[in-house]
Amino acid sequence: MEKMVKIPKSHPRYWSLYYREKVIEGLEKGMTAKAGLIAHGRGEAFDYLIGEKTIEPAEKAMKAAIAKLLLAKHPVVSVNGNVAALVPKETMELAKALDAKLEINLFYRTEERVKAIADELKKYDPNVELLGINPTKKIPNLESERGKVDEEGIWKADVVVVPLEDGDRTEALVAMGKFVITIDLNPLSRSARMADITIVDNIVRAYPRMTELAREMKKLSREELEKIISEYDNGQILSETLLHINSRLKKLSQEGIWRKKELPF
Amino acid sequence: MEKMVKIPKSHPRYWSLYYREKVIEGLEKGMTAKAGLIAHGRGEAFDYLIGEKTIEPAEKAMKAAIAKLLLAKHPVVSVNGNVAALVPKETMELAKALDAKLEINLFYRTEERVKAIADELKKYDPNVELLGINPTKKIPNLESERGKVDEEGIWKADVVVVPLEDGDRTEALVAMGKFVITIDLNPLSRSARMADITIVDNIVRAYPRMTELAREMKKLSREELEKIISEYDNGQILSETLLHINSRLKKLSQEGIWRKKELPF
Repeated sequence: MEKMVKIPKSHPRYWSLYYREKVIEGLEKGMTAKAGLIAHGRGEAFDYLIGEKTIEPAEKAMKAAIAKLLLAKHPVVSVNGNVAALVPKETMELAKALDAKLEINLFYRTEERVKAIADELKKYDPNVELLGINPTKKIPNLESERGKVDEEGIWKADVVVVPLEDGDRTEALVAMGKFVITIDLNPLSRSARMADITIVDNIVRAYPRMTELAREMKKLSREELEKIISEYDNGQILSETLLHINSRLKKLSQEGIWRKKELPF
Repeated sequence: MEKMVKIPKSHPRYWSLYYREKVIEGLEKGMTAKAGLIAHGRGEAFDYLIGEKTIEPAEKAMKAAIAKLLLAKHPVVSVNGNVAALVPKETMELAKALDAKLEINLFYRTEERVKAIADELKKYDPNVELLGINPTKKIPNLESERGKVDEEGIWKADVVVVPLEDGDRTEALVAMGKFVITIDLNPLSRSARMADITIVDNIVRAYPRMTELAREMKKLSREELEKIISEYDNGQILSETLLHINSRLKKLSQEGIWRKKELPF
């Protein structure tokens, strides 16, 4: 119905438009919630402000996250409808590189949506082990459908990766004592503010980079990994991210943007 | 399917969540495109950055816009699927206060969507005159479906209000010699950069305020209205908007946001 005009790869916003289509396809495949489309738009806006590239504070956050995940006893990577639409293959590669479990975990949980996501992931790896199909445990202080977790997954986990996550849920996981890593383009969101490590980056750039880091950092000793974690300061990283956006906006306001067909930077 | 949890009006983000639901309803009613949901999310992000209130540069832009519209020979207010979902009644009130024509004008035009929007508007005023039902003219340099306009509406207009508009279309209207007024929460978007007057505000706040201004400013003389327009500088307004966002982000970065349940401002 909403036929996409063919966009040449040379278009400056090609990838943004490409992933926008992926999320719309996610809705059409029954994986992504309608509210997930709106959430994707919020992400696009912040990615635009960041400059649509991985910034230094995000790189530092990814290193600390991978160090923590490599030291974890029971690491779990969560998958929701937007994640499955954007990075199905990359999610499985990350979990594999980390020896982490994968759990389908949805804010707007329906059995149809869980099944659609499982089917999508199995296209890339028919033998993938997926948790969250029949979750029997519940995160305290969340409404029933939103709190369901797998006993062998998030329930038991010490370190969880919850990308593109709702604020209430991030907060509830922190309150349970989990070490929470989130990927969220909005540095001001409640998830970003409440997580232990906040990676302010587009998941389509972050996951391949995190997988690369996991493979490299496996060679480090426990002490080296612990040092990376102890030197990491999430509050500082969030402030650096805000200042990055800031300095770009300031330069644009000085340069002037009116009637400029392209932004100068 | 995505049942909304009842949100109390006291919730700090009540209105943001309320209008999010309105846009989802717009999709369900066949008015709003899926890509419109993503666009709404981008708007939410920028509204969040602005502070979810009408800022001074937007107030100045609204005054200049109303002055120009009151002096126009043939003013037209355009309606798309997001506008119809968010402010159906307010759009008609604004057009009435301005003596402007209303034109349904869609980026993803389908006859079903045009009809759904017309039906929605007629709920509030069964006698409303709507253009754009059978558009026979075309904006040059746009793909066919995206360029269709009504001969009695945008085609003939000297001043057009195109809220929440696509950048290509805004640019094409400017190239046609129209005086283009847009409402767009993203001050960096191509629409925002290319329009003659850019109102960086949430349309749910802007339209009622613009209607109020139209009623008040009708009393002004032609000279007074012309003075308002001649003193207006859209480039300056866009820069002031970026600096507003900037100063808020800077304060937040200094204050620190990590593990803060609420943003301090």
